[in-house]
Amino acid sequence: MALSGEFRRLDERSVIEYVKGVPALWSKLQEADGDHQLTAKEIGDGNLNFVFIVTNTASKASIIIKQALPYIRSVGESWPLTKDRVYFEKMALEEQGRLAPHHVPQVYHFDSTMSLIAMRYLEPPHIILRKGLIAGIQYPLLARHMAHFMANTLFFTSLLFRSTLDHKREGTQFINNFVHVYNSFINNFVHVFNAFIPFPIAVAKFCGNAALCRHTQQVVFSDPYRIYNLNHWTSPYLDPDAEALRQDNLLKLEVAHLKSIFSERAQALIHGDLHTSSVMVTPQSTQVIDPEFAFYGPMGFDIGAFLGNLVLAFFAQDGLVDQPEDRKAYKEWILQTIEDTWNLFYEKFIALWDEHKDGAAEAYLPEIYNNPEVQLLAQRRYMADLFHDSLGFGAAKMIRRIVGVAHVEDFESIADAAKRATCERKALNFAKMLLKDRRKFEGIAEIISSIRLF
Amino acid sequence: MALSGEFRRLDERSVIEYVKGVPALWSKLQEADGDHQLTAKEIGDGNLNFVFIVTNTASKASIIIKQALPYIRSVGESWPLTKDRVYFEKMALEEQGRLAPHHVPQVYHFDSTMSLIAMRYLEPPHIILRKGLIAGIQYPLLARHMAHFMANTLFFTSLLFRSTLDHKREGTQFINNFVHVYNSFINNFVHVFNAFIPFPIAVAKFCGNAALCRHTQQVVFSDPYRIYNLNHWTSPYLDPDAEALRQDNLLKLEVAHLKSIFSERAQALIHGDLHTSSVMVTPQSTQVIDPEFAFYGPMGFDIGAFLGNLVLAFFAQDGLVDQPEDRKAYKEWILQTIEDTWNLFYEKFIALWDEHKDGAAEAYLPEIYNNPEVQLLAQRRYMADLFHDSLGFGAAKMIRRIVGVAHVEDFESIADAAKRATCERKALNFAKMLLKDRRKFEGIAEIISSIRLF
Repeated sequence: MALSGEFRRLDERSVIEYVKGVPALWSKLQEADGDHQLTAKEIGDGNLNFVFIVTNTASKASIIIKQALPYIRSVGESWPLTKDRVYFEKMALEEQGRLAPHHVPQVYHFDSTMSLIAMRYLEPPHIILRKGLIAGIQYPLLARHMAHFMANTLFFTSLLFRSTLDHKREGTQFINNFVHVYNSFINNFVHVFNAFIPFPIAVAKFCGNAALCRHTQQVVFSDPYRIYNLNHWTSPYLDPDAEALRQDNLLKLEVAHLKSIFSERAQALIHGDLHTSSVMVTPQSTQVIDPEFAFYGPMGFDIGAFLGNLVLAFFAQDGLVDQPEDRKAYKEWILQTIEDTWNLFYEKFIALWDEHKDGAAEAYLPEIYNNPEVQLLAQRRYMADLFHDSLGFGAAKMIRRIVGVAHVEDFESIADAAKRATCERKALNFAKMLLKDRRKFEGIAEIISSIRLF
Repeated sequence: MALSGEFRRLDERSVIEYVKGVPALWSKLQEADGDHQLTAKEIGDGNLNFVFIVTNTASKASIIIKQALPYIRSVGESWPLTKDRVYFEKMALEEQGRLAPHHVPQVYHFDSTMSLIAMRYLEPPHIILRKGLIAGIQYPLLARHMAHFMANTLFFTSLLFRSTLDHKREGTQFINNFVHVYNSFINNFVHVFNAFIPFPIAVAKFCGNAALCRHTQQVVFSDPYRIYNLNHWTSPYLDPDAEALRQDNLLKLEVAHLKSIFSERAQALIHGDLHTSSVMVTPQSTQVIDPEFAFYGPMGFDIGAFLGNLVLAFFAQDGLVDQPEDRKAYKEWILQTIEDTWNLFYEKFIALWDEHKDGAAEAYLPEIYNNPEVQLLAQRRYMADLFHDSLGFGAAKMIRRIVGVAHVEDFESIADAAKRATCERKALNFAKMLLKDRRKFEGIAEIISSIRLF
């Protein structure tokens, strides 16, 4: 199934036919007796893809079917984007699921021809974290869960755990060219090649996600700093702010530096789009989804994405209610969550480092880093660099959500434009300061204090 | 020929038989009539390979045949190293030859099964630069030629010239696993695959040089800082110096930082071993050879290797003659060459950047870096970072040549151990200072002044 036929876009009708044709999925739905018991609903609210929930009304069992189209859904066919991205999402879900099993949905099925992936349905009351933040819901375990997810997925795919050879091998799953080779190869020659497996498997492992890296590079590090027809902001209020951004030479220098790290540094397997809409939550559960931008890149890009989006949520709060007082306690919870996430991540990451420091990794060989003082200095320096990278990437991600192509619901749901602009300006000014002065901050507590000043 | 048969190690007799079996080589030697006119001599003085010069005594035409064995020649079978490295040497010679044709020998023939490459014979008076530096010979064009080679090969393979997609594509020629797939594939299935070229070509392009990166990582960034049975130094004189190195926590921190850049940053296609024995010279000609360590890495590793080895040559001079006065002028020439190489490289690199700033590259888009001030700031910052990387890598390369596994003839040819140790200690102390304080230096002139103080 996965290797035959043509790509065709699915709708709420045809997705049911598709599911019935795949035993692995059929069984997950606990064999409804007859079509009438199967319903499908398109629930994708994302920029990129179509997402269906398929339910057996008899057994109540549901699964998620996600299909990528060869363009960006929110923009249309004018902005093509390889549908091979589903292949990387599947690879990343499996790797991250292995490293943080309690925080990643299980993959049931992958179809490269259809650019389709089937996975666990995250049942109610799971909702997108961003919607929870807008609604003012507290998630007491969020910081701990996200710290665990980030520490495990980043540490175990870095040179602090992996040998150089393994790292270089894994690190080149990220050239999209190869996907086409791989796909045509699988589709046309699989009968020939079955003779010499694992050759096609090796090829598959070396596929790459360059197209989506490039997309991120453009929307995060380029668009906000140039005149671009798809950019938008709360006009006319933020017109001067957007203009000032395009005139800020020092800001552009910092952005160029971050862009080069993003483009050149294969530090670990990162999610690549870890904002608050890539996380589904209940008070007890935290699930990280949508890693279709995953590639070997700088760890700080994930940490910064998550923390930066929490900061956006913080600055949106005053606009979401009539009486700012109503969200006073909630704003404190967000700040506490930002602080706890970094501190717990730090703690967990260092614990993993200590636990595995005598392993296969070659970055800090025990016979060289052979005394407590140098070990402490090395970890402090590594984490300080990671902290400053995270602040820089977080700030860049905040800026692009205010003056760039794609905005966030936190602000968009503030109906009063003047009110929205006031919130956005505070976030924008904080982000600009952070991007330029990030190296002056020595700890997360200083960041929290600084946020309070805006 | 290139794709058939088994690997066998060649000697001065069998290499002649091999050459006669390859028309492309036979013709380069201008068809000698009869074997008696062909002579072969093994001239490899390197650590790694066997190098034969094959000559037609009638036509006087000569070619170089280089064969890699599956271990490091200077150490023996106890230190295995993939012979696939010849494949990367061939790829790098072709790419660098395209970018700096006057400074790279032409490749005539490549045989993956035999791990063999045939190339232009660099006729007398070409000699290894290191030997020229030991003999006290001045090369008036050396700085200009090396600046040209480094600027062209580094700029055109970086994100300052290439689009992100091209860069990611090229950047993954560096996973050695794939070479084995590639080789077995070529050797066994080429008749099957000829049907769907360019598939095998694509596979080949994605091969990687991880094994040799790992070797460099060990000998440069690890061995000098740990107790290792293959390390050696001028004992007993330098025993305390070697010990002090292994106790220097701050030095170890800087080395860890450089090691991470070397292992993670795919900035450009670098030669990977650009010391003064990888350059052949006459007063008019400069030829860069032996790029078998080539991979996508940090530019500063090449620049630092070349400058660092010139500094080693400088500190060796006093030991090479009875009267230091004899080399006074020559030492000045070396310092001038160090200064000129960096300054000419800087000039050439910036010229290429300016010339191509409206091209396909996405690192500094013209609509963002759109005023002379920000363009100047961006270039200054980029070059300052590159300068500091180069100083760090150069210092690390100096240190490893004094207390590590492989030493340099500059010092080794000083017979008097006490005298040698004095020279080596000056170089070592300068390198330690440079590694720790490199960020304090703002220009190459300050480096020259600092060298004079040791």
